[in-house]
Amino acid sequence: MRMYDLIYKKKYGGKMTKEEIDYIVQGYTKGDIPDYQMSAFLMAVCLKGMDMEETTNLTLSMRDSGETLDLSKIEGIKVDKHSTGGVGDKTSLCLSAMVAACGVPVAKMSGRGLGHTGGTIDKLESIKGFSTSISGDEFFENVNRIKMAIMGQTADLAPADKKIYALRDVTATVDCIPLIASSIMSKKLASGADAIVLDVKMGSGAFMKKFDDALALADAMVKIGTNAGKHTSAVITNMDQPLGLAIGNALEVIEAIDLLKGKEPKDLMEDCIALGTLMLIGGEVAKTHDEAEKMLIKTIEDGSALKKFAEFVEAQGGDPEYVYNTDMFEKAQYVDPIPAPASGYITHIQTDEIGMCSLILGGGRETKESVIDLSVGLILNKKLGDRVEKGEPLAYIHSNDKAKTAAATERFLNAYTISDSYEGGEVKTIYARVTADSIEKY
Amino acid sequence: MRMYDLIYKKKYGGKMTKEEIDYIVQGYTKGDIPDYQMSAFLMAVCLKGMDMEETTNLTLSMRDSGETLDLSKIEGIKVDKHSTGGVGDKTSLCLSAMVAACGVPVAKMSGRGLGHTGGTIDKLESIKGFSTSISGDEFFENVNRIKMAIMGQTADLAPADKKIYALRDVTATVDCIPLIASSIMSKKLASGADAIVLDVKMGSGAFMKKFDDALALADAMVKIGTNAGKHTSAVITNMDQPLGLAIGNALEVIEAIDLLKGKEPKDLMEDCIALGTLMLIGGEVAKTHDEAEKMLIKTIEDGSALKKFAEFVEAQGGDPEYVYNTDMFEKAQYVDPIPAPASGYITHIQTDEIGMCSLILGGGRETKESVIDLSVGLILNKKLGDRVEKGEPLAYIHSNDKAKTAAATERFLNAYTISDSYEGGEVKTIYARVTADSIEKY
Repeated sequence: MRMYDLIYKKKYGGKMTKEEIDYIVQGYTKGDIPDYQMSAFLMAVCLKGMDMEETTNLTLSMRDSGETLDLSKIEGIKVDKHSTGGVGDKTSLCLSAMVAACGVPVAKMSGRGLGHTGGTIDKLESIKGFSTSISGDEFFENVNRIKMAIMGQTADLAPADKKIYALRDVTATVDCIPLIASSIMSKKLASGADAIVLDVKMGSGAFMKKFDDALALADAMVKIGTNAGKHTSAVITNMDQPLGLAIGNALEVIEAIDLLKGKEPKDLMEDCIALGTLMLIGGEVAKTHDEAEKMLIKTIEDGSALKKFAEFVEAQGGDPEYVYNTDMFEKAQYVDPIPAPASGYITHIQTDEIGMCSLILGGGRETKESVIDLSVGLILNKKLGDRVEKGEPLAYIHSNDKAKTAAATERFLNAYTISDSYEGGEVKTIYARVTADSIEKY
Repeated sequence: MRMYDLIYKKKYGGKMTKEEIDYIVQGYTKGDIPDYQMSAFLMAVCLKGMDMEETTNLTLSMRDSGETLDLSKIEGIKVDKHSTGGVGDKTSLCLSAMVAACGVPVAKMSGRGLGHTGGTIDKLESIKGFSTSISGDEFFENVNRIKMAIMGQTADLAPADKKIYALRDVTATVDCIPLIASSIMSKKLASGADAIVLDVKMGSGAFMKKFDDALALADAMVKIGTNAGKHTSAVITNMDQPLGLAIGNALEVIEAIDLLKGKEPKDLMEDCIALGTLMLIGGEVAKTHDEAEKMLIKTIEDGSALKKFAEFVEAQGGDPEYVYNTDMFEKAQYVDPIPAPASGYITHIQTDEIGMCSLILGGGRETKESVIDLSVGLILNKKLGDRVEKGEPLAYIHSNDKAKTAAATERFLNAYTISDSYEGGEVKTIYARVTADSIEKY
């Protein structure tokens, strides 16, 4: 087999066999196939596509390029949730507690990564004493005892994906459904869960801007997971504005805790319910969506989710009092409103730019070496469709540096569009639910 | 400007500006743009195309990446002929003498290169004493005095093309009209001629297999040359069988000399006339095709082309007696017929495989270090549409090694198809003539 011939085949729209895909993935990972051949192949895939069989084989080949985690020490059906990423997405924090309170084990391995805020681990570290430096045995023991634990990702999962992604990132071959789907799913399949629930974000703050693309990605990932023998389902959710009101690290943890106390931001709650029902069904503790939804709401009403979150925090060395009294979180030095420059309705939010405001304030990592300021961020006061009067706050900036406040404010104002009228109709949180058997649009 | 954005633009079918193309070509040549980005870009060009303006700008940018030859010391309008390459193509040898005899200066710079036979320089070295190691001044002086000279190519013409071609060769991005056309034309434009005539080969021994592709390539090259201010024209010629009967080095020189003596292989003569008329018109020594054709035929009839060729050989140190008496060429040790395995008609010749027979015999270079055996090769006895009886020679193999004869014979027989009937009709030599103003199909 020669890489040249395989590039040529895909260039003319040919279908790659499992053996050919293995040759490419393993050859590239080992360094036998040079970058310049791989990038030509990837561009041909972008422009000529891959069918589901090819995409599944690509995923499995990337999964098999490294370690596969063994979660068999955890009792019950392990359900893994993954979000394609958005601004203000603190779902993992509150949803995990709700699901764990329903008896589904939540065994989370997480990285830190780059972004406009830190990752889930960074966010949790805003709770005094909280640590993810626990041993594997401790991790398993915690999950079995309280159904919820998180540890730093140390295993070398899907190294082929890492290498291929790095190349795609510099050759404009990122935006391609088969490549995105296989990248995400190779890591998910390597991380050992029995069932997978996917949150595919769509809109101005997400990679997917259009419904058809988001649906194609969700559908491809559900099919890959199903082909690989895992119960897999997905929801497509709105990222045309940040999820909830808080963007930042400590600020997002506080909002997640508030949700567990019933002080819901409506869209965050809807996101949690949509994903949670799929997790409860995947985890086989509920049979129908209605049943699952009732169970999830009960964990809020009876305080069991909040209690679960406090237990989890304590088990990992954190001070559980933070959960009951969020005033204990470290606060930023300055809190300044961003006054609306005009009266009208919020008709568009350039959501990725709102994420950039958090990054400017120091809330995220630009490079691996960046130190995150956990206290900074934004609290939105107005969202899509809301009426605002000139001078009324659009949001509040939490900052430790007035120059950064000014820069973030300027960026924020460019990201909000205020018009005389709003005709966008009801702002949906959930656009569709995708399972192996069905696609339901909302 | 960032290469990433330019790859992205072409991936979505965007049109590159002159500045963007210059950035890519000069950046890649200097090593600022890595191979893996360039190969992704080239694949996007293959699959999304380039219009004539982009293709012209790409050509000019590659031309300008190195030296441009100055031929101003040569009197008259310099016309350069280029063939896209085929088997048995000795047109340069005889055509140059015919055209020079009509007063058009032929200043040929040639390389050695890889192939199933040597290049024009190798072929000419089968004449005792012939040398291309002449100085630039001697070269110009010879062209002015006898209208014909050849020297080895030493200048670093279009280094961008060299580097890009090497990358295309390993990334399956060779077969793309804008990239082929710009590659050829960048070198032609750098070599300083005033007018360019192109021989685009088409068929089983050529890169272009189909008429539409050959026409698209010819048309693109003519448009590029015209856009660059050079009188440019092209013919599309048949390469479904070798041109003439001889394949080899000395054997081809002998056939070319025979043509100048009026012992024409018909197709070779047609090729010379088709190209020669365009050269005479480009060189402004004839106004119409009819006039040019008469002038060219006269150079054969009155012996002036043969005399010109002898003059040229002598001027470069060669023994002119070889021209008048081709028995003086060194002969191969063995000449063996290839008997037809069955009676019937020749209905298909896999022409590139016939070229491989010459390579097997030692007539070409597989690597830069290969030493060419100038005496070996093949003389065809049957061509497309010909009737053959079982046992009758299809061709004669000239060889210095019986084992190589056997290997070449086996390969040859696999390349010839003999069927009960031939329905291919008349075998055309010329398919079309393409100028800046018109496309004439034959």
